[in-house]
Amino acid sequence: MLSHPFDDDKLREECGVFGCIGLEDAANFVALGLHALQHRGQEAGGIITHHPETGFHSAHRFGLVRDNFTKTGVIESLPGSIGIGHVRYSTAGSKGATQIRDVQPFFGEFAMGGAALAHNGNITNADAIRRELIERGSIFQSSSDSECLIHLMARSFQKTIPERMKDALRRAEGAFSIVAMTRTKLIGVRDPLGVRPLVLGRLHQGWVLASETCALDIIGAEFVREIAPGEMVVISEKGVESVQPFAAQKSRFCIFEHVYFSRPDSFFGGRSVYETRRQIGVELAREAPVDADMVCPIPDSGTPAAIGFSQESGIPFALGITRNQYMGRTFIEPSQAIRSMGVRLKLNVNRALIRGKRIILVDDSVVRGTTSQKIKEMILEAGAAEVHFRIASPPTAWPCFYGVDTPEREKLLAANMTEDEMRDHIGVDSLRFVTLDGLYRAAGEAGGRDNSCPQYCDACFSGEYPVAPHDMIERGFTPKQAAE
Amino acid sequence: MLSHPFDDDKLREECGVFGCIGLEDAANFVALGLHALQHRGQEAGGIITHHPETGFHSAHRFGLVRDNFTKTGVIESLPGSIGIGHVRYSTAGSKGATQIRDVQPFFGEFAMGGAALAHNGNITNADAIRRELIERGSIFQSSSDSECLIHLMARSFQKTIPERMKDALRRAEGAFSIVAMTRTKLIGVRDPLGVRPLVLGRLHQGWVLASETCALDIIGAEFVREIAPGEMVVISEKGVESVQPFAAQKSRFCIFEHVYFSRPDSFFGGRSVYETRRQIGVELAREAPVDADMVCPIPDSGTPAAIGFSQESGIPFALGITRNQYMGRTFIEPSQAIRSMGVRLKLNVNRALIRGKRIILVDDSVVRGTTSQKIKEMILEAGAAEVHFRIASPPTAWPCFYGVDTPEREKLLAANMTEDEMRDHIGVDSLRFVTLDGLYRAAGEAGGRDNSCPQYCDACFSGEYPVAPHDMIERGFTPKQAAE
Amino acid sequence: MLSHPFDDDKLREECGVFGCIGLEDAANFVALGLHALQHRGQEAGGIITHHPETGFHSAHRFGLVRDNFTKTGVIESLPGSIGIGHVRYSTAGSKGATQIRDVQPFFGEFAMGGAALAHNGNITNADAIRRELIERGSIFQSSSDSECLIHLMARSFQKTIPERMKDALRRAEGAFSIVAMTRTKLIGVRDPLGVRPLVLGRLHQGWVLASETCALDIIGAEFVREIAPGEMVVISEKGVESVQPFAAQKSRFCIFEHVYFSRPDSFFGGRSVYETRRQIGVELAREAPVDADMVCPIPDSGTPAAIGFSQESGIPFALGITRNQYMGRTFIEPSQAIRSMGVRLKLNVNRALIRGKRIILVDDSVVRGTTSQKIKEMILEAGAAEVHFRIASPPTAWPCFYGVDTPEREKLLAANMTEDEMRDHIGVDSLRFVTLDGLYRAAGEAGGRDNSCPQYCDACFSGEYPVAPHDMIERGFTPKQAAE
Amino acid sequence: MLSHPFDDDKLREECGVFGCIGLEDAANFVALGLHALQHRGQEAGGIITHHPETGFHSAHRFGLVRDNFTKTGVIESLPGSIGIGHVRYSTAGSKGATQIRDVQPFFGEFAMGGAALAHNGNITNADAIRRELIERGSIFQSSSDSECLIHLMARSFQKTIPERMKDALRRAEGAFSIVAMTRTKLIGVRDPLGVRPLVLGRLHQGWVLASETCALDIIGAEFVREIAPGEMVVISEKGVESVQPFAAQKSRFCIFEHVYFSRPDSFFGGRSVYETRRQIGVELAREAPVDADMVCPIPDSGTPAAIGFSQESGIPFALGITRNQYMGRTFIEPSQAIRSMGVRLKLNVNRALIRGKRIILVDDSVVRGTTSQKIKEMILEAGAAEVHFRIASPPTAWPCFYGVDTPEREKLLAANMTEDEMRDHIGVDSLRFVTLDGLYRAAGEAGGRDNSCPQYCDACFSGEYPVAPHDMIERGFTPKQAAE
Repeated sequence: MLSHPFDDDKLREECGVFGCIGLEDAANFVALGLHALQHRGQEAGGIITHHPETGFHSAHRFGLVRDNFTKTGVIESLPGSIGIGHVRYSTAGSKGATQIRDVQPFFGEFAMGGAALAHNGNITNADAIRRELIERGSIFQSSSDSECLIHLMARSFQKTIPERMKDALRRAEGAFSIVAMTRTKLIGVRDPLGVRPLVLGRLHQGWVLASETCALDIIGAEFVREIAPGEMVVISEKGVESVQPFAAQKSRFCIFEHVYFSRPDSFFGGRSVYETRRQIGVELAREAPVDADMVCPIPDSGTPAAIGFSQESGIPFALGITRNQYMGRTFIEPSQAIRSMGVRLKLNVNRALIRGKRIILVDDSVVRGTTSQKIKEMILEAGAAEVHFRIASPPTAWPCFYGVDTPEREKLLAANMTEDEMRDHIGVDSLRFVTLDGLYRAAGEAGGRDNSCPQYCDACFSGEYPVAPHDMIERGFTPKQAAE
Repeated sequence: MLSHPFDDDKLREECGVFGCIGLEDAANFVALGLHALQHRGQEAGGIITHHPETGFHSAHRFGLVRDNFTKTGVIESLPGSIGIGHVRYSTAGSKGATQIRDVQPFFGEFAMGGAALAHNGNITNADAIRRELIERGSIFQSSSDSECLIHLMARSFQKTIPERMKDALRRAEGAFSIVAMTRTKLIGVRDPLGVRPLVLGRLHQGWVLASETCALDIIGAEFVREIAPGEMVVISEKGVESVQPFAAQKSRFCIFEHVYFSRPDSFFGGRSVYETRRQIGVELAREAPVDADMVCPIPDSGTPAAIGFSQESGIPFALGITRNQYMGRTFIEPSQAIRSMGVRLKLNVNRALIRGKRIILVDDSVVRGTTSQKIKEMILEAGAAEVHFRIASPPTAWPCFYGVDTPEREKLLAANMTEDEMRDHIGVDSLRFVTLDGLYRAAGEAGGRDNSCPQYCDACFSGEYPVAPHDMIERGFTPKQAAE
Repeated sequence: MLSHPFDDDKLREECGVFGCIGLEDAANFVALGLHALQHRGQEAGGIITHHPETGFHSAHRFGLVRDNFTKTGVIESLPGSIGIGHVRYSTAGSKGATQIRDVQPFFGEFAMGGAALAHNGNITNADAIRRELIERGSIFQSSSDSECLIHLMARSFQKTIPERMKDALRRAEGAFSIVAMTRTKLIGVRDPLGVRPLVLGRLHQGWVLASETCALDIIGAEFVREIAPGEMVVISEKGVESVQPFAAQKSRFCIFEHVYFSRPDSFFGGRSVYETRRQIGVELAREAPVDADMVCPIPDSGTPAAIGFSQESGIPFALGITRNQYMGRTFIEPSQAIRSMGVRLKLNVNRALIRGKRIILVDDSVVRGTTSQKIKEMILEAGAAEVHFRIASPPTAWPCFYGVDTPEREKLLAANMTEDEMRDHIGVDSLRFVTLDGLYRAAGEAGGRDNSCPQYCDACFSGEYPVAPHDMIERGFTPKQAAE
Repeated sequence: MLSHPFDDDKLREECGVFGCIGLEDAANFVALGLHALQHRGQEAGGIITHHPETGFHSAHRFGLVRDNFTKTGVIESLPGSIGIGHVRYSTAGSKGATQIRDVQPFFGEFAMGGAALAHNGNITNADAIRRELIERGSIFQSSSDSECLIHLMARSFQKTIPERMKDALRRAEGAFSIVAMTRTKLIGVRDPLGVRPLVLGRLHQGWVLASETCALDIIGAEFVREIAPGEMVVISEKGVESVQPFAAQKSRFCIFEHVYFSRPDSFFGGRSVYETRRQIGVELAREAPVDADMVCPIPDSGTPAAIGFSQESGIPFALGITRNQYMGRTFIEPSQAIRSMGVRLKLNVNRALIRGKRIILVDDSVVRGTTSQKIKEMILEAGAAEVHFRIASPPTAWPCFYGVDTPEREKLLAANMTEDEMRDHIGVDSLRFVTLDGLYRAAGEAGGRDNSCPQYCDACFSGEYPVAPHDMIERGFTPKQAAE
């Protein structure tokens, strides 16, 4: 029923997580934190809290945080000073409709008490673990890879929940930033490579864990530090205890968090995401200059790079394309005749501005190339003299298996075409992507990418997967090495 | 129940209108046009169509066009190739809750057949007309000033609906851009001063009327011309007939349409709204320069002027404040504790970018000054060294009575303070508004404002009302002359 | 979308009305009264109240009273100690979908203040009145005949609302029991023939008007008297004033109120409706005895007559057919395969009881005969030896135009067949209707029907319409005289 | 929020189950069957089906079957020719709000494929089983006792689902009538005592399992036989295989199914439930005669016994109390003032009938006695000369632990008072319950109750629990032996 008349042609982060302890009416803070992380998942959300007198409380809902988790009734049904929450992205039709049972956080009652868990990332050997657990008599309620973790914990022989969690996570491969809770403890953990982000904050006497710093800002919490790759923190009234459950590995933070996933006002490694994006534009202007009259972003995600491009090139920055802010992400289409109007429902070209001009359009990425083509048509129809695309990421040629919704490799434009072929396919005067080295430089690696031991996970560009995607290989995915 | 934790502190256009004729399944086009005009009214919308076999059809709904008027069932319930529509702004609690009966277009069955009407503007002598009509036995269904027009038409002795409409409008004072329809005709009319906009477009064999050109763009219609102040067009299968029901007057288009109301990708008088706004920034930079490190817009409406200010001053443009795009306009507040967080629900300062910098913040207007103060606090808390406000409109010192939702004069900051007092009140290092002349220059009047006969309606700035607001005077409003 | 898989094959009362004055939080009482009158209309309902400080308040909703008018929020939005309400029957698809604007009470703002009105009955010359009013410039909002009254009142030259109401009603022909209100007065009026019921009750210091006595019982009000045919009562804090706006006529109360429309626990003319129905069963047993093993009612409306038949005949009474109480009136059908099961969704035969028995089935009426046939099939399939139908009303051969939803005459079984033909058509061993005289005797007229001047309106049986149905004749209906 | 202004003061069956195999579009049949069983549970319902191409499908909803499971969209989302379903009663506030996860059927994915299960009854050692399973690492999703069965099945070492089910059920104590399904088999099983009913039917080439015969009738299925106590049937395309997983025991069918739970048109042991109820009235008239003018049932459940009482005593039967059929089971109360009206919202006394008469009121049971008192007040207020209560079951003195919602023993009137004390407490002229022997005679046991080995489970009357309620004893319940 629902469809996307203007397919964004973006990769989509699948989740955001948030937790807090030591804050009265924790659900309020969790709701606000999830609201700030809404860009990481708009399909559904859930909150679990614990109150010493009434036990665990939970609410899981489809839709936006602002529509579900701000009503007095819902918040009052979630008492307690400890709580965690999760927002989840709609993973389209291909994987089947999400059921409310798939919405996290997940909860399990163990012999020593209950625990809840919210997961950002993807367990790449979940299929195998799930098969084994079913064989041994576990009943799965969801289709989520994350549910494995709760079952592994339930079957652990350890005496405490943090110990059981270590047990479970040592079985898991892949990417995970997890926020969990018991009746008295808030737990945060990142996988050994630290693929997905997780930050620690402080508010009054309480502590906060969140996917991004923007979720600390909204509640007025102070940023303390990032959880380190491979680190587990166990937070109780006694304070923050840090443990290292895994063998040490070199960090491989997801570089796409800088390119697109994270909010521009968040920062990682001391670096403003906005500033990194602006700097990508600067790199692009150096790597792929072009003579033109105007630099226009594809709204909204291309804006920082477009500003950087304009500043480096001296070509004026202008809002040549306007986004309809009442669009929402979905639109139920009225009829076939209208459906063909597609992109116009969301974007409009400022004709009076564009006419007769040579335009540089800056976008953050090209995935299938479907919308690039449509935007090009709109802008030519509005009378632009020339159209040059500049893309603030390298060609996306490989799917992500670490918690991002990517089309199959066959559907990725860059998996099938060279840069020049893409230019001709889209039909623009020029098309250039920032280089992988340029991207690394913009992200603060002055020397570019260390090819022998890359500083980031960039599998979607390079095909070099830092953790083998075993489930997907079993389902038929052919990794790079075998393909070449 | 609903409240605005982050009060935008903006004037609000109260309506957008759209109509078309000669286009199969007209309701589809009306829905799209209203979607493009959604910024002119988000509370409710309505569509009326006519089909030769089944007569008039109507649907009126609270909420956004995308949520109501794109479902197949609704569109199919609105058959026909002629239709009009209306979007309406929520006029806050002070005037009482809107009922569905207040949602336009209004419909009336006359002896010679039905007619429907959608109105943008405000009839300034509606109270008097209404009293007289009730005295004579008319039954009003809504609290809307626009319903008067239908009743005046019903009581006219003229034989055709266009003639009855002329009769009715000659009794009306104030501002009105109206789109109306009979079974076979689409009618558009603007008041003699042309305060509110109305444009004519062409699509295939059909014709379109809309408040702004962006609503032509969304359906791919070609812009033909603006309806002239005081002009009525009667469009049938025979074509467009233009008549002049009123005595000629000099045009007084609302200058605030350029400043804030209209979408930046619309154009009036051949001038891009975006370009006018950018030019206001240029004027501001000339009139009120300041030494600083960064020019940041208050998102989203301050952006074009901030770009202009940056370009004229050479001070770099940056997105120092991020807007949460999942905010919506309303937010049901979770608790008193949270309510105090207010502005953080919607805006966040990019701390890593702002810290230690001297910041110029560019906003489009200051009405009550409530949010200016909150934004100043956020930006200082994030570590800005200096904060300078530059406002892309003159001080708003008078309420609008021509179809815009304005606070009472007592609540307007500029009605009570000088520019310097406002600066101290808001607590910033400097605060400057563009001058009225600067605004006129940016809007294309090279010589500035013609004070003897102003080119625009600027009553909200100057207190010079081109049409006396009789109803409001009767209700106690004191116009400028009497006040000084 | 909605359909009736088990078409009840009943005539349907179209409305119930209720009003009260002098009772704090009147809306509570109106809601309860309408709940008690829900059998008179299930499609929609409305309540209007008046509070001296806040004026008139209204709520109109589709659906049952218990689902709409018992929520705290709705009741609190209807303050005041005076109020009226209306429930309305769904008049099927033939007349077009009801819109919320058709839901009563109707409200009108007159020069001397507002008034609201709720109407049970039908104005038989409404088409003509409406045409004239439109000609003179009135704007109609609904498709209801009752709206004419508000417009006639608006155009009256009288100085008070009761006087304007008299003016209006003297123009109206047909059947009407009306409850109306001004800011300070509750008004009740019945047409000169008193076709529809209206009773007066007293509770504490307040007064109540209602269609039936069961609505007095639910709020604990004491029955005072029936409003007389042709009487208007104007109730204020000074008490009940009775006036006679119309020329005196002999009463013609609707006899079908006794047969089916009214609730069995109501009473009219001092006579319990239940007792009259039981007595019809007694008359039937005398007029049309039959040798059998068991008397079973068609639930639920045939029960009192079946009890009477059993008591008079000595044949045991038994519940041979069970009604599914979770059926509701509508059922959205799952598929064509299921649709054919029709009657089984609502009724089930008690097989163990029925098998091998000679069964007398007692129903209150046969309209189109559609369900009689289906019930016969079910009961034979369950193994009954013989099936005898006894109907507690005479053959329904004419449509009602006084506020009852009747099929067109062509669809009435009794308009097309004799009693014997009907028996063969339905396929039962015997079929007998009570005679018109028997019905009158059961209703307390010991001498039967006075054919020269009938004591009741029985047009649906006799074709003798006490008020000529002018609108319907104009639309093509042929009355009896012309037909024979 | 929801409350019961007229508390029915009834025991409530907690569930109804239905399943079918070999019927195209099975979901249609399951929906109809559940609709017929709606009296066994109105709070929520669920359906699971299996289609060979698309696997298992499920839908669980709060509310009535007719509102949820008849919409085309829902039914189409449940393809396949095999399916099971469940309706569930609201177990009031005391046990906490039901969550959608508590709604059956439950589904589990096992190593050899999925299975679903719907349970009517109660596992009396579920607490102990649950504790053990959690200890061993099972994760429970619901608070339902029935979920234990799925987990026990998941952990069984048997190779087929029917074998695993036997394994699981041999661990379970208590009452259970279960309908289960695999991809290709429909399974039915009753506990060794056969406390809850389960019947087998045949329709075309398919088979049907249902709690009562009325659910066979609605789909036109032929009754084949009851599933025997302790029998398991495994139905596949090869036919019905019967197995005996348990040691043989003498049957103890719940006698309250005859008194109140089942629908009157169902039959058990060849006996019509209606006829048994009527016969209880006959026994009552013999055991406890009284001189009076009228026998009136408390609607609707007291009706058959009232008919029997009237027939045996010769005192006329009459509907002296009318039930408002639009009441529903719940009513959101408008205000404190109204709440006190309680019983009037649902029942009304037929004043014209009752006044001055000596009335025998027949009800099916008295649990807490709360409504008996209110009805007595209403009927005296209406002017009855005498009021005599006759109850068609023995005093309810013990809670049921086999799948019925009963108040705690302290709240049962008969646990605290003798028959005479109850008469005085309720305040009626006489109050008599049928004896346990009289009840057994009415149920077909001519010799009355065999006290050494009772033919039925009558624990709610006798305190003799055929299966020890271990969980409840552990929670503090004191069985009869210890109490006396």
